[in-house]
Amino acid sequence: MLNAGVIGYGYWGPNLVRNFMDCEHTSVKKVSDLDPARLTLCKTRYPSIQTTNDYREIINDSEIDAVVIATPVASHYPLALEALKAGKHVWVEKPFTSTVEQGEILLNEAEKRGLTIIVDHTFIYTGAVQKIKSLLDEKQLGNVYYYDSVRINLGLFQHDVDVLWDLAVHDFAILHYLFGKKPAAISAIGKSHVAGRPENTAFVSLMYDDNFIAHINANWLSPVKVRQILIGCDRKMVVFNDLDQTEKLKIYDSGVVLNTKDNINETLLGYRTGDMLAPKIPTTEALKDEVYHFVHCVETGEAPLTSGAMGLEMVRLLCLASKSIKQRGAPLEIK
Amino acid sequence: MLNAGVIGYGYWGPNLVRNFMDCEHTSVKKVSDLDPARLTLCKTRYPSIQTTNDYREIINDSEIDAVVIATPVASHYPLALEALKAGKHVWVEKPFTSTVEQGEILLNEAEKRGLTIIVDHTFIYTGAVQKIKSLLDEKQLGNVYYYDSVRINLGLFQHDVDVLWDLAVHDFAILHYLFGKKPAAISAIGKSHVAGRPENTAFVSLMYDDNFIAHINANWLSPVKVRQILIGCDRKMVVFNDLDQTEKLKIYDSGVVLNTKDNINETLLGYRTGDMLAPKIPTTEALKDEVYHFVHCVETGEAPLTSGAMGLEMVRLLCLASKSIKQRGAPLEIK
Amino acid sequence: MLNAGVIGYGYWGPNLVRNFMDCEHTSVKKVSDLDPARLTLCKTRYPSIQTTNDYREIINDSEIDAVVIATPVASHYPLALEALKAGKHVWVEKPFTSTVEQGEILLNEAEKRGLTIIVDHTFIYTGAVQKIKSLLDEKQLGNVYYYDSVRINLGLFQHDVDVLWDLAVHDFAILHYLFGKKPAAISAIGKSHVAGRPENTAFVSLMYDDNFIAHINANWLSPVKVRQILIGCDRKMVVFNDLDQTEKLKIYDSGVVLNTKDNINETLLGYRTGDMLAPKIPTTEALKDEVYHFVHCVETGEAPLTSGAMGLEMVRLLCLASKSIKQRGAPLEIK
Amino acid sequence: MLNAGVIGYGYWGPNLVRNFMDCEHTSVKKVSDLDPARLTLCKTRYPSIQTTNDYREIINDSEIDAVVIATPVASHYPLALEALKAGKHVWVEKPFTSTVEQGEILLNEAEKRGLTIIVDHTFIYTGAVQKIKSLLDEKQLGNVYYYDSVRINLGLFQHDVDVLWDLAVHDFAILHYLFGKKPAAISAIGKSHVAGRPENTAFVSLMYDDNFIAHINANWLSPVKVRQILIGCDRKMVVFNDLDQTEKLKIYDSGVVLNTKDNINETLLGYRTGDMLAPKIPTTEALKDEVYHFVHCVETGEAPLTSGAMGLEMVRLLCLASKSIKQRGAPLEIK
Repeated sequence: MLNAGVIGYGYWGPNLVRNFMDCEHTSVKKVSDLDPARLTLCKTRYPSIQTTNDYREIINDSEIDAVVIATPVASHYPLALEALKAGKHVWVEKPFTSTVEQGEILLNEAEKRGLTIIVDHTFIYTGAVQKIKSLLDEKQLGNVYYYDSVRINLGLFQHDVDVLWDLAVHDFAILHYLFGKKPAAISAIGKSHVAGRPENTAFVSLMYDDNFIAHINANWLSPVKVRQILIGCDRKMVVFNDLDQTEKLKIYDSGVVLNTKDNINETLLGYRTGDMLAPKIPTTEALKDEVYHFVHCVETGEAPLTSGAMGLEMVRLLCLASKSIKQRGAPLEIK
Repeated sequence: MLNAGVIGYGYWGPNLVRNFMDCEHTSVKKVSDLDPARLTLCKTRYPSIQTTNDYREIINDSEIDAVVIATPVASHYPLALEALKAGKHVWVEKPFTSTVEQGEILLNEAEKRGLTIIVDHTFIYTGAVQKIKSLLDEKQLGNVYYYDSVRINLGLFQHDVDVLWDLAVHDFAILHYLFGKKPAAISAIGKSHVAGRPENTAFVSLMYDDNFIAHINANWLSPVKVRQILIGCDRKMVVFNDLDQTEKLKIYDSGVVLNTKDNINETLLGYRTGDMLAPKIPTTEALKDEVYHFVHCVETGEAPLTSGAMGLEMVRLLCLASKSIKQRGAPLEIK
Repeated sequence: MLNAGVIGYGYWGPNLVRNFMDCEHTSVKKVSDLDPARLTLCKTRYPSIQTTNDYREIINDSEIDAVVIATPVASHYPLALEALKAGKHVWVEKPFTSTVEQGEILLNEAEKRGLTIIVDHTFIYTGAVQKIKSLLDEKQLGNVYYYDSVRINLGLFQHDVDVLWDLAVHDFAILHYLFGKKPAAISAIGKSHVAGRPENTAFVSLMYDDNFIAHINANWLSPVKVRQILIGCDRKMVVFNDLDQTEKLKIYDSGVVLNTKDNINETLLGYRTGDMLAPKIPTTEALKDEVYHFVHCVETGEAPLTSGAMGLEMVRLLCLASKSIKQRGAPLEIK
Repeated sequence: MLNAGVIGYGYWGPNLVRNFMDCEHTSVKKVSDLDPARLTLCKTRYPSIQTTNDYREIINDSEIDAVVIATPVASHYPLALEALKAGKHVWVEKPFTSTVEQGEILLNEAEKRGLTIIVDHTFIYTGAVQKIKSLLDEKQLGNVYYYDSVRINLGLFQHDVDVLWDLAVHDFAILHYLFGKKPAAISAIGKSHVAGRPENTAFVSLMYDDNFIAHINANWLSPVKVRQILIGCDRKMVVFNDLDQTEKLKIYDSGVVLNTKDNINETLLGYRTGDMLAPKIPTTEALKDEVYHFVHCVETGEAPLTSGAMGLEMVRLLCLASKSIKQRGAPLEIK
């Protein structure tokens, strides 16, 4: 039984507590939050959980094996560092840290002590992303042309991070997991429409050495919610609509066909539009699978799919994207 | 009765012929096309129309008042110039011309002779765009934050123009009509996934002197068709989904609310999510209204909403966008 | 070349004229209508077509081979009878006639003279219905359980027929074509909400000797338009949504699974939910195919898929449904 | 603090436990179920709750104030009766009981002892139904013409009740709450497609003394899930799509218009199609509000919106519908 302590019972914390309580291999011993109302809510729901406004009671509890950090990004680094130093495994919400340096220090600390860091890039554990990954691994889609993600809604303005760090980070993680290749350059354009606040609207392009291109449209100020990713390949094309409860994934047998006319010099472009298949996708909550994965990694010492090292890569990209925004979208090389 | 001759009976030509035939103030006397099969189709449908493979028979026909040009973009300029020189009013498909210079010559020629040029930016004549324009004119939406357009589908590869010139041009026209202000800079990223072909995927950002930003996602290689424009304003937000037959326009009473906490230094951001209204939109075919508008402009000498001058502005933007694509998205100033 | 005369240029007439003009084997010589405005519209569109307010000019024209009747139902019988007596092939809009007797007389008349009658049950010629038919013929779906159709919208109130005769008739035709078996009993409930008008809302159930059941929900007073048919079978299930432009047909690999528990007396019911396939459906306009089919039947003497005899069966069912409505839904046997 | 014991931790039980735990005025002391695996799940989630396989431990617990019954319908009556006799307030899942007589006995027992019975017709507590009720109360919709509900999906086959008792009962409750008038007759057609099982497909019509008609399409064997209610009125029409997360309710300013022509004898029917409004609906979970309402009723002695008496009315209708099914849809009078 892995005993967890959860720091932060705000927006995402309750989902973490619920899944750590539901899993038969884990339990939540303590929850901390600065807001007493949140602690009361937690206590009402789970009378068995101890609540506190001092996170140190979690970090110093020798019965707690893992610390789950669901607080604003700026606090990820100090909290995770304290937890690691106290010998705890760490589950951190995404994005991992505010800077590359912070991430590197945490990685070193964990490695030194043989502790596990998992960064909660939940999307990687969804049935849909897992299915796309297997389609790619089985070479069913062909060469990939583009990745086009729209991730918009009337979202909570974050205090400390902009819409890129909040939403586009999901796509950075999915791209990393699905294609495993590093972009060559990044260009990002962002706007803040509320004085003194971080960017609420951003458009990011990731350019790769081959012809592949990825684009992300992230927006906290959209009246409608869209969570749609298109993946265009030369054999098939995939649409992942996360809001469609029953047909999240659609695989189109469509593409471009090159015909050679009698006159050999003239190539005709035609279209192949064929059937569409919506494969059955497991409906397990991704977070549930991720909790089991975390337990497995803690026990075996294996690196999580979304390890600290992977989370650090994401922070590297986010920092570069933020830099491009300041230069009004100038493309920046990635070394 | 305005007598028209139509050059080009390919993809769009039949719609033009049908609308010029349906209108009681216009008639089509002749249609030309290089493909005999297209002429046979035209003749079968409209035995009263004369068909020819030589466009000069249209331009030289003294009974023809207006020449409608629905041919590949590269031929717009020479055909329009001949038509103007023959004293004909001209209806040209969008985009107007291939270069700014061509457009300027046509404009001069038309002005010199007192002839009307209309560029067929059809979207301007849709009930939805007209409705948005009136909402803006009546100050119902508040300050505009962003314009976000997704215009993707499995489209016909054009031989002579890229996806920007084919699809993004619609948004350039809508932006010009709705907001009437000139962007300060433009950044465009594009990819061609078929060797030797123009860009089939492009992302364009138009930056303005105020905080307004416009973004266009144009793609000929998408498995799904999307035609959606979001317009985010501080009082209301608009979604224009052109594929929704019954609720093309949705107006959301949603936005950001700034609250001042007791502690005066702390500003809280909240959301206002309210009712959504889908106003009734006239369902008249835009092309029908545009034909009437053309007749009116020819008779009165008034400039069309989508005049040659307006079409020239669009070509200017397109050329600049193409230039930015070559520089991998580098933002270019617009003077 | 089959020369047609079209009686009635109201709602559906223009579609018929357009398709008879587009087809290279047919042409429209004359169109008649009682409303001069409709004739003007027709003449403007097709200067080559003669228009008249006297349908007899069509029936008496020796150059006309086929008469197309697109008038209110009550006039189908007298017009078709005159046309047959004049030796013309006949295309009649659905429903065929107002009474069974009328249909029988027309059938006799056509048979006696070797003339073709086609009743325009257009749905039979759609790619979707043709695809479902082939799935059934190939035994891909298994035993059929139910047919459930919702056919509602804010529709034109017909003067002479109720919503059953206007909308449910489509399902009667599709059921007849797909399953080819006769219902054993029919029950229909209908309501008129506008005084002195025919029923605008109706619910019909067709019960068969085996366990199959068909149900139709037809409504002229719905704020939303729905055109959806579910076909539940034991191996697969089909959804035909006629308003979905790209995925009209969805085939679900879902159904009931019977498991036998260890305890042999206990049968467990489980569900199989599998992939969904949206097969590519030809997008040809059904009316176009129907015109070609009509020409073929006239030339060869073959009976159309939607022959007069088939149309008569539909009228028989409609009459019985109307009778059940008067008895507040009492189930009536079909002999 | 109201102390609850929950009997049954199957499909719905966990939702009840969660809401009774979340509410600050209630708590769950004990949960019983016959399946040890369910009890383990409950215990893992809520270590503070006592679990047992003997419901009597709940009924005999003097610290428990209310017994929540979430078991198969057949057991509602004996369990509720025991609970009432032990002086407990009772929350019963819908439908209330298997027979009218059972319901009457429970009502008497509760009245005699001054105890509260609530029947969990959850829909009554949804924001959408509450909003429709207020629109009706404010006379905004006009005279109601019809209620048309489609409630279909690939549902769990119930062992003891058919699809009417499982799904159509929701509409019976909504109709009762919204319109408060008694139907004059009921007609129901049902089919069982799995040998030895209750009906899985049913169509019910409720006819009223005025022209109002209600129809319900309930199906456990549909490949797609639909939860849509249309309410047609003469001034406005309402669509309640429970699966639409953001626009559950749409109010159409559409209807029939009667025009009188110059010729006074001729009445023309036209359509008024106007704007559509999707009002903001509170997104609180209905069950949460219902728990608060239950606490309020227990404390004040007020009758719940979905009292035992109301639940009994529903059982009466269900029994009559079942009788009509046996007569193949024959309409049965309601006294």
